[in-house]
Amino acid sequence: MLHILALFSFLLVSSSHAALQDFCVADFTAPQGPTGYSCRTPAEVTADDFVYSGLRQPGNTSSIFNASVNSAFVHKFPVLNGLGVSLARADVAPGGVFPLHTHPGATEIILVARGAVTAGLISSDNTVYVKTVEEGDIMVFPQGLLHFVVNNGGTEALIWVSFSSPSPGLQVLNTALFGNNLDSDLLEKITLLGDDEVQRLKGIFGGTG
Amino acid sequence: MLHILALFSFLLVSSSHAALQDFCVADFTAPQGPTGYSCRTPAEVTADDFVYSGLRQPGNTSSIFNASVNSAFVHKFPVLNGLGVSLARADVAPGGVFPLHTHPGATEIILVARGAVTAGLISSDNTVYVKTVEEGDIMVFPQGLLHFVVNNGGTEALIWVSFSSPSPGLQVLNTALFGNNLDSDLLEKITLLGDDEVQRLKGIFGGTG
Amino acid sequence: MLHILALFSFLLVSSSHAALQDFCVADFTAPQGPTGYSCRTPAEVTADDFVYSGLRQPGNTSSIFNASVNSAFVHKFPVLNGLGVSLARADVAPGGVFPLHTHPGATEIILVARGAVTAGLISSDNTVYVKTVEEGDIMVFPQGLLHFVVNNGGTEALIWVSFSSPSPGLQVLNTALFGNNLDSDLLEKITLLGDDEVQRLKGIFGGTG
Amino acid sequence: MLHILALFSFLLVSSSHAALQDFCVADFTAPQGPTGYSCRTPAEVTADDFVYSGLRQPGNTSSIFNASVNSAFVHKFPVLNGLGVSLARADVAPGGVFPLHTHPGATEIILVARGAVTAGLISSDNTVYVKTVEEGDIMVFPQGLLHFVVNNGGTEALIWVSFSSPSPGLQVLNTALFGNNLDSDLLEKITLLGDDEVQRLKGIFGGTG
Amino acid sequence: MLHILALFSFLLVSSSHAALQDFCVADFTAPQGPTGYSCRTPAEVTADDFVYSGLRQPGNTSSIFNASVNSAFVHKFPVLNGLGVSLARADVAPGGVFPLHTHPGATEIILVARGAVTAGLISSDNTVYVKTVEEGDIMVFPQGLLHFVVNNGGTEALIWVSFSSPSPGLQVLNTALFGNNLDSDLLEKITLLGDDEVQRLKGIFGGTG
Amino acid sequence: MLHILALFSFLLVSSSHAALQDFCVADFTAPQGPTGYSCRTPAEVTADDFVYSGLRQPGNTSSIFNASVNSAFVHKFPVLNGLGVSLARADVAPGGVFPLHTHPGATEIILVARGAVTAGLISSDNTVYVKTVEEGDIMVFPQGLLHFVVNNGGTEALIWVSFSSPSPGLQVLNTALFGNNLDSDLLEKITLLGDDEVQRLKGIFGGTG
Repeated sequence: MLHILALFSFLLVSSSHAALQDFCVADFTAPQGPTGYSCRTPAEVTADDFVYSGLRQPGNTSSIFNASVNSAFVHKFPVLNGLGVSLARADVAPGGVFPLHTHPGATEIILVARGAVTAGLISSDNTVYVKTVEEGDIMVFPQGLLHFVVNNGGTEALIWVSFSSPSPGLQVLNTALFGNNLDSDLLEKITLLGDDEVQRLKGIFGGTG
Repeated sequence: MLHILALFSFLLVSSSHAALQDFCVADFTAPQGPTGYSCRTPAEVTADDFVYSGLRQPGNTSSIFNASVNSAFVHKFPVLNGLGVSLARADVAPGGVFPLHTHPGATEIILVARGAVTAGLISSDNTVYVKTVEEGDIMVFPQGLLHFVVNNGGTEALIWVSFSSPSPGLQVLNTALFGNNLDSDLLEKITLLGDDEVQRLKGIFGGTG
Repeated sequence: MLHILALFSFLLVSSSHAALQDFCVADFTAPQGPTGYSCRTPAEVTADDFVYSGLRQPGNTSSIFNASVNSAFVHKFPVLNGLGVSLARADVAPGGVFPLHTHPGATEIILVARGAVTAGLISSDNTVYVKTVEEGDIMVFPQGLLHFVVNNGGTEALIWVSFSSPSPGLQVLNTALFGNNLDSDLLEKITLLGDDEVQRLKGIFGGTG
Repeated sequence: MLHILALFSFLLVSSSHAALQDFCVADFTAPQGPTGYSCRTPAEVTADDFVYSGLRQPGNTSSIFNASVNSAFVHKFPVLNGLGVSLARADVAPGGVFPLHTHPGATEIILVARGAVTAGLISSDNTVYVKTVEEGDIMVFPQGLLHFVVNNGGTEALIWVSFSSPSPGLQVLNTALFGNNLDSDLLEKITLLGDDEVQRLKGIFGGTG
Repeated sequence: MLHILALFSFLLVSSSHAALQDFCVADFTAPQGPTGYSCRTPAEVTADDFVYSGLRQPGNTSSIFNASVNSAFVHKFPVLNGLGVSLARADVAPGGVFPLHTHPGATEIILVARGAVTAGLISSDNTVYVKTVEEGDIMVFPQGLLHFVVNNGGTEALIWVSFSSPSPGLQVLNTALFGNNLDSDLLEKITLLGDDEVQRLKGIFGGTG
Repeated sequence: MLHILALFSFLLVSSSHAALQDFCVADFTAPQGPTGYSCRTPAEVTADDFVYSGLRQPGNTSSIFNASVNSAFVHKFPVLNGLGVSLARADVAPGGVFPLHTHPGATEIILVARGAVTAGLISSDNTVYVKTVEEGDIMVFPQGLLHFVVNNGGTEALIWVSFSSPSPGLQVLNTALFGNNLDSDLLEKITLLGDDEVQRLKGIFGGTG
């Protein structure tokens, strides 16, 4: 019995507080720093914190792109804070599109769980890499590079997306250009797009200026 | 026309070689270092290098654990070299199990694509976090911690697994203990397992010593 | 004299606040993030903060393993916060053992300062690396891999342990398996251990379930 | 004299090979890995390797954008290999533009050494941050975000550009979209640009498809 | 119209909070951690936060070294928090000197914008690398190594300095040795400098002890 | 039997090549990169590679500083490659000194195993932190900062030194200044040391110029 007590003292000495470092569930009420959110007290963390059910249902694909995305990034799934990985679910109706975009903070892998899509990326030297990705296949988009997904098939595609960061960021080209108050003259100068085209797309994406 | 030529010179000056840094597809014939493999020449990289089809089919689950795993780590999918993420596919028959194991080099997220499983992890302070993970749910296992998956349902479960490293490593407790030539006396001393149990399990996992 | 004043202004301009970045002594009353604790104000830091005396005395080795460990991780020695290294002292009586365990967050080097021990590690491919480590020798256990130390000699061994992190974590196999409320049926399923053995070890390590 | 010899032995013991780690001048004839090029033998490195004179002269700004950029990235200035920083020189004629682009691998600071420019960036939530940057001012563009520079003044602007990586990468929107063989139908689908506009810009940037 | 609303829902779902990760402007009123300061709320960040005008004017070079430095490190330019880069401006009068110093936390590149200087560094194996750096040239000083700049010319030199960290630190040899209360006996023992020299330099740099 | 074979296939599929990532024992005959040496083939690695016996014996302390250091950095103990930690042994005779020096690439912890020393460090803002470190105590020197150790006691001190890098680097102030061919005029300009003192110390440390 003495031995057992001594054992526990042995274990307490060595591992007390250690769980603080196993994980750092985000506390959104405390300050955030460059590498993530503050941690909740480990004693408050339960099994429920490790599981997220928000990706069960398909999203509503009746948007202009006939596609939806639902992310499990750290701001929704706080156990990911500091852990270097996150997920998202994408549903793409027949004819649907994920328009050109980048993730400034993460590499992405798509897994086509249902259907088939045409996907591609463009590298820094302007080379285009395009492939048809069949059901069960995976495709990689390295960090920060423009990429896209198109569903040319007849089935709604279900895509699981993995990222190398709990907070990948997302810059969609159409809304970055046409969904804000960026001055039209300036925008035309830095893209060489014509004014008619700019006004048309500002109309679609709600831009002003 | 002059302008166009000048433009290309502008672009060549600024971006030549830059693609080297967009990605680093592993060249298994050249040296490997602590952060990954050497890179293939970017000019040889094609769209095919970004896609992997090796996870399409379910694995054979008729092993002792009634489960199989098929990984798309960097040594099979070389574009992942240096990109901080990888995937695997797990199939778990009814009653099947992924026995206790760790990934020394990565955090893991499981996504239950079909069926439902009971999964859990154990933290450094010996707390157990167990949950039933339903179809469409995801669960996180922080880097280096013991975890497991059990299929208590009646359906074969399909699980997609994401990792925060192109090379997560895998240490399965049963084979680490009983699947090698670790001396039985020593093994019993460092686990407090009884000799009968050790011999029985060495028999199952092919261990000697 | 003017020159000297100007010099000080030169130095104040360039280095004021810089000491904030030389070190970040942990403030346990402020939030913790994924990469460590908040910093105390540098002006409050004194020479005493850089020194720790808690490892002077041998620990009590009369536990079930006849061994003790005393760590100087960041939660005890707050100057280590963010600095990538920590230490511990281990005392192992004759016949004593550090049972199988991992450090999820750090590589470890042991230095046998007195006595001699048998130590080993198991790699991801189940290879066992075992050696007798003599007085003055050092041995390395890479991050996240199972390892152990046994004192087969007649002298109490003194071991200094260095880690590549201020907070290495510690997962001891025996207590992770048998020192908590992990359900016995589940435990047997994910380890293939027999029920008798599980109950016996739960008895030793205080487990329930 | 004995003392001096002993001293040298002391120094040789402790520092031999250490210089290998002070810097790692790129050897372009040996393999490259995810974190950079192989190192040249330190004994071959001379003071000349630390200095680069390729940025002395203004570039030719008679391109379509009336701007030029000349980079001192690692592939031109090999001492930067592994050192986490690089530079470039930009010259922008009156009316000249650096069109929208990203650096997938680095944060950027511009320093307007002569003239004044209007510069801006767009964040992940589509907010536009635009400022006039006067001579002597600096402006920051965080990693991976779209940004641009326009010279609305009457003077040729000279801009020194610092990056947080020896190999920042560069993805220019116009050439990524219109300077390659990306299929026009596909391009229109993933950008919502009209076909006339796409053909016009493919004409300017040399695109096919 | 329905489509446009759906589009916005699509975008809100995917990118809300994402801007938190694009940048982390330092909030000096909240805790600091090992990797930087806490972040200000992104909604409060404006274009002004991305620009810094504090480097426009030459510094006063009438110090003992006939040189001045003015830094734009994170504590003055808070948008740099977490972004891995910073700048400084150095003005060196004819005959002026930046005495031997190190930056414990960053590699440095100097760009000689006006004038010419002699600059050098010393590596771990005591090799000296000295060069004359002409107008328009750049020179690199790897992290943590002693280096210096001397203006032997007849013109005031203007130098732009880039660092691989928002907070490089600065340890000036003269003030580290002679500008504090380090006990003279001790100082002489650990430098082998003579007492007369130590007292003379303590006089210049305001040291005591 | 079928089950056992299937198990092995299960294990081979998942872990083959994984051991490559558990450790990366340096191969000095292959190229080195910014993050370390190339790896030896794991199949060639044996238990002997994990153990180093070169620190058993005290060094010869009859140098000018009456001290010796013997390091187990990666170039001597190749298993440390990529593992983020290393060790050294220091012996300091009564009256002996480790003169002022920095490690550009690592934080250091000293452990006084025998004897007692006076040790100190100087921060970026020129504050001096000095302490007597008794037997069994540990003291920390953050990366890149000047520090020293003096043995004022009557016993030869034995110090175990841990570093946060396999290759910490070492820049000893005396030899960096006086043990090379750095021009005396230049040296005096960048240190304000007098010529007599410079010549005297160049004599001691073998400098020329």
